[in-house]
Amino acid sequence: VLSKKITVLAGDGIGPEVCREALKVLDAVAERFGHEFEYDHQLMGACAIDATGNPLPDATLQACYHADAVLLGAIGDPKYDNDPSAPVRPEQGLLRLRKSLGLFANIRPVTAYDVLLDHSPLRAERIQGTDMLIFRELTGGIYFGQKGRTEDGSAYDHCTYSREEIERIARLAFQAAETRRGHLTLVDKANVLETSRLWREVVQQLAPEYPAVQVDYLFVDNAAMQVILNPKQFDVILTENMFGDIISDEASVIAGSLGLLPSASVGSSVALFEPIHGSYPQAAGKGIANPIATILSVAMLLEHFGLLQEADTVRAAVQKALHDGVLTPELNADQPHTTEQVGSYIAFQV
Amino acid sequence: VLSKKITVLAGDGIGPEVCREALKVLDAVAERFGHEFEYDHQLMGACAIDATGNPLPDATLQACYHADAVLLGAIGDPKYDNDPSAPVRPEQGLLRLRKSLGLFANIRPVTAYDVLLDHSPLRAERIQGTDMLIFRELTGGIYFGQKGRTEDGSAYDHCTYSREEIERIARLAFQAAETRRGHLTLVDKANVLETSRLWREVVQQLAPEYPAVQVDYLFVDNAAMQVILNPKQFDVILTENMFGDIISDEASVIAGSLGLLPSASVGSSVALFEPIHGSYPQAAGKGIANPIATILSVAMLLEHFGLLQEADTVRAAVQKALHDGVLTPELNADQPHTTEQVGSYIAFQV
Ligand SMILES: CC(C)[C@H](C(=O)O)[C@@H](O)C(=O)O
Ligand SMILES: CC(C)[C@H](C(=O)O)[C@@H](O)C(=O)O
Repeated sequence: VLSKKITVLAGDGIGPEVCREALKVLDAVAERFGHEFEYDHQLMGACAIDATGNPLPDATLQACYHADAVLLGAIGDPKYDNDPSAPVRPEQGLLRLRKSLGLFANIRPVTAYDVLLDHSPLRAERIQGTDMLIFRELTGGIYFGQKGRTEDGSAYDHCTYSREEIERIARLAFQAAETRRGHLTLVDKANVLETSRLWREVVQQLAPEYPAVQVDYLFVDNAAMQVILNPKQFDVILTENMFGDIISDEASVIAGSLGLLPSASVGSSVALFEPIHGSYPQAAGKGIANPIATILSVAMLLEHFGLLQEADTVRAAVQKALHDGVLTPELNADQPHTTEQVGSYIAFQV
Repeated sequence: VLSKKITVLAGDGIGPEVCREALKVLDAVAERFGHEFEYDHQLMGACAIDATGNPLPDATLQACYHADAVLLGAIGDPKYDNDPSAPVRPEQGLLRLRKSLGLFANIRPVTAYDVLLDHSPLRAERIQGTDMLIFRELTGGIYFGQKGRTEDGSAYDHCTYSREEIERIARLAFQAAETRRGHLTLVDKANVLETSRLWREVVQQLAPEYPAVQVDYLFVDNAAMQVILNPKQFDVILTENMFGDIISDEASVIAGSLGLLPSASVGSSVALFEPIHGSYPQAAGKGIANPIATILSVAMLLEHFGLLQEADTVRAAVQKALHDGVLTPELNADQPHTTEQVGSYIAFQV
């Protein structure tokens, strides 16, 4: 029996709706297995700007520091996207949170579900059996380098990586590969970028410590093709922040819906779990948002707590919903279910 | 009747084979239409390093300056890729050539050919009718910023864009959109990068000058999904150097083979034409390389010379080869033709 404190950042757009269903599932797990999960709801993103002027209020950050884990819905609002020069933006909250919590590794599993093969834009035979795990560096690179304008009106963004930043996530990726199919692919642009050459050097230096892992190197432009042409070739992918943002979202098309893909961000202390989809404001409040990505993020959270059986139970419940077609409209246009119905159905299976 | 001087940089790997077929087609055009094309073969890439120690010898650069156009095969050799710290690399030649010739816009059309719909990893109904034109900035951004190592062993790459660099390619993209379906999509990461915010500003400022063009903005991670989920939504895509490298290679999967996609790089003076595929060293000398991408690059070259009928003739000849299945093994596994046979067949149709 465990007792854990979870800070919940429901965020913007569909964030609150999908979090609600995920917590419903977590409650079902608590009840069935006799655990205690305490939720502390805090503001982040556009809702936090509206309420406090700050996308990451100090109370939110403090709550995250003191939690056993953080569950995040989604953040972002189009009113900021169309005004690139807005001084305060929701994304700043997320980026600052990642940095403050030291969440240097974002881990995204991409799986092709058999019952959904026909929903992918890719041909079923190309994707059937896909099972990859993407390690995206999350607190370095061009996201966090110096940026600004020069006197002549030019703009700049600086990308930097230290050996330590690369080594710590590379070790996690090597370790994951050891427990999986023993294959690690570093995605970089070492034929052009100095930072990529450092990534290659560090990974090459670590490789002898993990003799059971075969290491491949792929330029990011080639990787962007290979992920679509032959996704089954990948086991663990390791890459830097910006490339990871692009490649992991791209890989999400394999699953057939962005609404299916969870992620975990880990680092020095508390870990954070979130669906990879965004705040999808057009869908907010309509009951059409798919809660499964957030529910599977909860499964990753349970695993992180060492609750493997509980995590498996949640995944099996999701499989049941997939199998029974209890799904939101993007996956079941003929007999669509609402966000709430999908969440309740999955919670009921737990 | 035209007389033109073309510098040919056949390059490495399959470069020489595909160039040979493209020149065969160009010769057929010259004969049929009574033009004169003079070819000046020069070294660039790994072959130039082997011969001179320099991936872009001065003689090559001078020849390009004095040419009416440049035709490039492909460059690159795996012996350099696995040694990220090699001080001299083939890619440096290509990057220096782009910069020296001021080739700031790389233009890549992506088309789904009806007869090849079954060869794409994407479902036919998703891609049928796809017709997009990607404008990738080619002489700025993180490719050409300062890069190096600091005392503590960190690596850095600086990304910079000036208003002028953005404006000149944006104007080309707007103009192209005006002659097409009137839709321009800027792909950036304006929620994180300062350079992207400048791209958005400049494009927003130019938009009123092109009232017939509707402008959309897409974050690069979302674009990486949309290109696969719904490629037909795109008309003209405009983006910076690094994002363009990734997104245009990704989009190439739509066509069913990387061996089909041409590109033109234009700028202040002489223009350069090249297939988007690389040097594919594993295939070199085997007669399996698809020459069509280079042949279609020649069609773009003819168009650039104002020879529209000639360009159409080449494209029609390619369509005939596609229709008749006179194709290299990746597109016709049952009755494969060699590089040479495909080239000759297309030249014969001219
Ligand atoms: C919202 C944005 C800043 C963020 C990122 O680019 O990291 C998002 O796309 C993600 O992948 O979590
Ligand atoms: C070879 C490499 C430097 C080049 C690039 O990244 O620009 C290539 O991938 C391309 O797209 O032409």
